Amino acid sequence: MRDFSNDHRWLSINTATVRRQRGADWPLPDILDACAERGIRAVSPWRDQVAVAGLRATADCVRRHAMELSGYCRGGMFTYADEVSRRAIRDDNRRALDEACTLGAACLVLVVGGLPGALGGRAKHKDIAGARAQVVDGIAELLEDARPRGMPLAIEPLHPMYAADRACINTLEQALDVCDALDPARSGALGVAVDVYHVWWDPKLLALIERAGRARLLAFHVCDWLTPTTDLLEDRGMMGDGVIDIRRIRAAMEAQGFAGYSEVEIFSARNWWQRDGGAVLDTCIERHRHCV
Amino acid sequence: MRDFSNDHRWLSINTATVRRQRGADWPLPDILDACAERGIRAVSPWRDQVAVAGLRATADCVRRHAMELSGYCRGGMFTYADEVSRRAIRDDNRRALDEACTLGAACLVLVVGGLPGALGGRAKHKDIAGARAQVVDGIAELLEDARPRGMPLAIEPLHPMYAADRACINTLEQALDVCDALDPARSGALGVAVDVYHVWWDPKLLALIERAGRARLLAFHVCDWLTPTTDLLEDRGMMGDGVIDIRRIRAAMEAQGFAGYSEVEIFSARNWWQRDGGAVLDTCIERHRHCV
Repeated sequence: MRDFSNDHRWLSINTATVRRQRGADWPLPDILDACAERGIRAVSPWRDQVAVAGLRATADCVRRHAMELSGYCRGGMFTYADEVSRRAIRDDNRRALDEACTLGAACLVLVVGGLPGALGGRAKHKDIAGARAQVVDGIAELLEDARPRGMPLAIEPLHPMYAADRACINTLEQALDVCDALDPARSGALGVAVDVYHVWWDPKLLALIERAGRARLLAFHVCDWLTPTTDLLEDRGMMGDGVIDIRRIRAAMEAQGFAGYSEVEIFSARNWWQRDGGAVLDTCIERHRHCV
Repeated sequence: MRDFSNDHRWLSINTATVRRQRGADWPLPDILDACAERGIRAVSPWRDQVAVAGLRATADCVRRHAMELSGYCRGGMFTYADEVSRRAIRDDNRRALDEACTLGAACLVLVVGGLPGALGGRAKHKDIAGARAQVVDGIAELLEDARPRGMPLAIEPLHPMYAADRACINTLEQALDVCDALDPARSGALGVAVDVYHVWWDPKLLALIERAGRARLLAFHVCDWLTPTTDLLEDRGMMGDGVIDIRRIRAAMEAQGFAGYSEVEIFSARNWWQRDGGAVLDTCIERHRHCV
């Protein structure tokens, strides 16, 4: 297992972690500059941040800083209620794939979507099995485009509390079943993003990481689970402030040969988004060394 | 599958659903009277409500109304950080068992506990596998007392969002693995409480209900999952107001021979607890007929 205590060469910052500090958007170029100043070698930006900063300008900024992208957030949201939506979703995912390629991301992260309409509070139906079938079809279709371009797709199983509105793939087992169905050769074109926040509770977690193996382990996201958690979406904790045994999970990943970045992804409306962005990055560096 | 649309003979009210209306505790005897007035034949009370009303008085009230208890809430919370706690928890569970027997409950529901200290916001450790091992030992010990008294123990897997602080048994699969380990003969002494709120998201749910079979299906709890859900604990929805396909789950239960009550258990600080208790019961009856 790698020793992180002496440096932060394997730290990546998911830029949602510092996206909006003290009520004002922190522009992506400024985030990248602040990361570079601190010797942070990798980031994972969100599409809306890139759209504001400009795709080409962002790619140039990344190159100027000699940075890597541990992933690109995100494709997915595959579920639909009608054919018009289905085509719009397909086209949007193709654009996400293009962007990921332009930025040279290590993978395109997929948050697969829940029941159509549920995110807006008005689910069109209650057929989660049907939604899951749409997700498999959507991933299969996107994989046809992604594979020849060499852009791996990383299915991110989301915590079951997001099953209704954000992602109906909710366990690593379920994500790996999809991988096995669509990429039985374990080519590396399709795998999983393991976010400790989403999977830490799973009694089968360590066995599933072993099942995934090197070829399927495309990304590793860290934060912490707070007790109490006061909001379903935006109350994630900084590593070390919660109950997740992050090191145990990282050890399981590395036992399979995973040697990539630990990507910090924290949505925290009440705490970390209320602080100076640079100070948050400094804390990420410190916690990466001692709590990851 | 039973037709619920013409009457509510298979409706049970978990008394937490109307425990505190408009800021004032609704005393358990009054809840039971209000249920009886409406032809509700079963309830599932909580220990703290029974403690206030008195065990003997509650048992008399239940008998006077010729009511059944679809379950008794609750035993469990097996996890501990020291030997003194372990013994206190064991003794408290024995008292819960005594009470369930006195009240003639169909089963004692077990919410098994999370990381010790986490419910108070200060987890003593992060070893969830260790906590799970304590849970298995605790259930095994309680089962020795419960089996000769003919009181079935119903393990209630709780939603993974409660893994840290309330219950580290989080899937039906995990609960059934414990049942198989401790009661391989499927004697009926140990089984599961299936609460749709906790398990609806599980991609393996229907197969797991089949695996459970008649002997392990001891209780069925209903409410609904709202989108958005604004609180992790106290924002459950009334049946029909959310995204859970309750009827599909009930059909799976009944296909295995389950023929017990549908127990309504709703914790709703912002909505149903703000209403007149009798009106809430009337709504439960109506929704039981049309949405369960």
